[in-house]
Amino acid sequence: MRRIFFLAALLLLCAGAQAQPQRPAPAAQPEVFTGVVINPDYSVTFRYRNPKAVKVEVSGEFMEGSAELKEAGGVWTYTTGPLAPELYFYSLTVDGAPILDLSWSVVKDIPRWMNYFIISKEPGDRGDVYGVNDVPHGTVASRWYDSATFHTRRRVNIYTPPGYEQNPKKKYPVFYLLHGNACDENSWLDLGRAAQVLDNLIAAGKAAPMILVMTNGNPAQQAAPAYFGDTYTNGNTLPGIAAFTDSFPEIITFIDSNYRTIKNKSGRAIAGFSMGGGHAFTISKDYPNTFDYVGLFSAAGSNISDPAQKQKLLDMQKNGYKLYYIGCGTEDFLHRSVLNYNQQLDEIGFKYFYRETPGGHTWGPWRIYLSEMVQMLFK
Amino acid sequence: MRRIFFLAALLLLCAGAQAQPQRPAPAAQPEVFTGVVINPDYSVTFRYRNPKAVKVEVSGEFMEGSAELKEAGGVWTYTTGPLAPELYFYSLTVDGAPILDLSWSVVKDIPRWMNYFIISKEPGDRGDVYGVNDVPHGTVASRWYDSATFHTRRRVNIYTPPGYEQNPKKKYPVFYLLHGNACDENSWLDLGRAAQVLDNLIAAGKAAPMILVMTNGNPAQQAAPAYFGDTYTNGNTLPGIAAFTDSFPEIITFIDSNYRTIKNKSGRAIAGFSMGGGHAFTISKDYPNTFDYVGLFSAAGSNISDPAQKQKLLDMQKNGYKLYYIGCGTEDFLHRSVLNYNQQLDEIGFKYFYRETPGGHTWGPWRIYLSEMVQMLFK
Repeated sequence: MRRIFFLAALLLLCAGAQAQPQRPAPAAQPEVFTGVVINPDYSVTFRYRNPKAVKVEVSGEFMEGSAELKEAGGVWTYTTGPLAPELYFYSLTVDGAPILDLSWSVVKDIPRWMNYFIISKEPGDRGDVYGVNDVPHGTVASRWYDSATFHTRRRVNIYTPPGYEQNPKKKYPVFYLLHGNACDENSWLDLGRAAQVLDNLIAAGKAAPMILVMTNGNPAQQAAPAYFGDTYTNGNTLPGIAAFTDSFPEIITFIDSNYRTIKNKSGRAIAGFSMGGGHAFTISKDYPNTFDYVGLFSAAGSNISDPAQKQKLLDMQKNGYKLYYIGCGTEDFLHRSVLNYNQQLDEIGFKYFYRETPGGHTWGPWRIYLSEMVQMLFK
Repeated sequence: MRRIFFLAALLLLCAGAQAQPQRPAPAAQPEVFTGVVINPDYSVTFRYRNPKAVKVEVSGEFMEGSAELKEAGGVWTYTTGPLAPELYFYSLTVDGAPILDLSWSVVKDIPRWMNYFIISKEPGDRGDVYGVNDVPHGTVASRWYDSATFHTRRRVNIYTPPGYEQNPKKKYPVFYLLHGNACDENSWLDLGRAAQVLDNLIAAGKAAPMILVMTNGNPAQQAAPAYFGDTYTNGNTLPGIAAFTDSFPEIITFIDSNYRTIKNKSGRAIAGFSMGGGHAFTISKDYPNTFDYVGLFSAAGSNISDPAQKQKLLDMQKNGYKLYYIGCGTEDFLHRSVLNYNQQLDEIGFKYFYRETPGGHTWGPWRIYLSEMVQMLFK
């Protein structure tokens, strides 16, 4: 059965029974948080118990700005309207201080931690695709490779699809997923739900089994700062930003020599968001005949006004490719720059697929682009 | 160079320069948290900016009870005395509400999230062993296996040591690490620092390269609840608590058929804390000649007053084993029960190694027992 229904049913059941979800004894955790309650109409109720608080506010991707919770008997509550299927981040502020709901799961988004919940109404809807469901799950491994470019060890996360271990002769295509500024190798897993998206779309027969490779694109980092125990720089002084795109061949070599991969362009895709979209733009044109599939999500720095860069796209056109996916939200601060790049591509007759969605420079659109693009790969 | 010195140096440098660590722009995160500052004498200063707060308190493993931060210009501060090398959890409370320092890393401990920091003074000290250092790192994989006992998929975390991928002919011993009540398969990694302990002790030549297997010992769970997006039960209704120990052979079979393991007792160790110590006690005696090394850390339920159970230990004695490690803190609520079990073992002349430390039923002692026991394995 599907995970989100377990949770929703449990919450509803217990909401009726004792006004909060059942749980193990909360140890030393004072009883001030109660998580979220998903109501039968898919509205969501936030509950926070703290008689001493003066003002409690909630904000999230499901509303403009923020809303004040109302207090009764020391318990603050706020209920949204019915919500569409989606993964929603939310934040609570108590007397001006941002807090986390300590009774609920959290994810890190540069450089703050946030709570989230998932709404799903039926199998296959957006929330369902982002959820952990009762389908075969791939393996997610965190490995380190020796970088000749950076003269250091660097961490990379690798998703191998269900069946990889059971089919020792089978070779798999590889999708390289790059992240934006101040994100890291964990972002596509924690915020992009990449493992869940692939598990669910592979199980539904909508995506081909593939390997996902999630690198750290920050030259100043060996790995996610949080992995070291702080949320800032890890103190390294490594080469400039271009060093990451320069170093990309060593990553492909590492993957091709450690996994059963299809070692040619027909078996390789690359995509990224924001800075990572710029990386995908650069890497796909600077290493010709390496990728048949390219994705630029809210890409930063995609521009071929420089004739030398334009020539690289013309060469790519000549060499051939299968998909050049461009996605951007209409509220994204890079929307104009993305449209400008599309126009540059139109001028040279460079074929691309353009997906425009509502939304800004956020994970909502990027998860949509990932979910759509993986269904267009390696077919 | 060693990670913690990067952090300490960075913090000190910036503390001098601008009274807080350098960082990427904190996005939408209001400037209320500043993390911890590790001072030259290894005392730690907590800083929290919130002019609206009335009372701010800090508590942690480095003090009895809690202490009030003092406010000046809207910034609340408290400085500890000099601290010994260790990983320390800490929690902040603002006007009665527990909060997380959102500028800093967090870990989940049943079922609350906490901040932590590491103090290390020199290579090889306790904080250093728990830190991410510039040594070869093993691979940590999250995989799922099909459980015939539970008729469901279950998640297991597996650490393979540095060199595992580079030595395709080499076989490795396996150390099964079990967790306590309301913990899960992530606990030994997140709170026990198991990957760092092994990376560092293997690099120092103090521990043999080995595979770590971290299971989920809660029959009502397929995986850590946080993995599903909430912090409570995942809603499954699976067999009773004994089902996990009953199911253990299927886990060994899964590992032995998926990894290059030494498939006999000389290549197997098992240990756990609290409920997991009870699991290790049960599994090691109920599956004779399966483990040469057993560890009971603050074990719950280790008792052989039942003659049938005593006989199993006598059989184990006859079959032979290499290490029976028992660890407990003098403040642990199970201390008396552990001493009672030791006495039962003395009565039958069953050899064991006993490590008693200060401290209670917490991760501090369990990390010490892990760090010590891995140096006694597979030699």
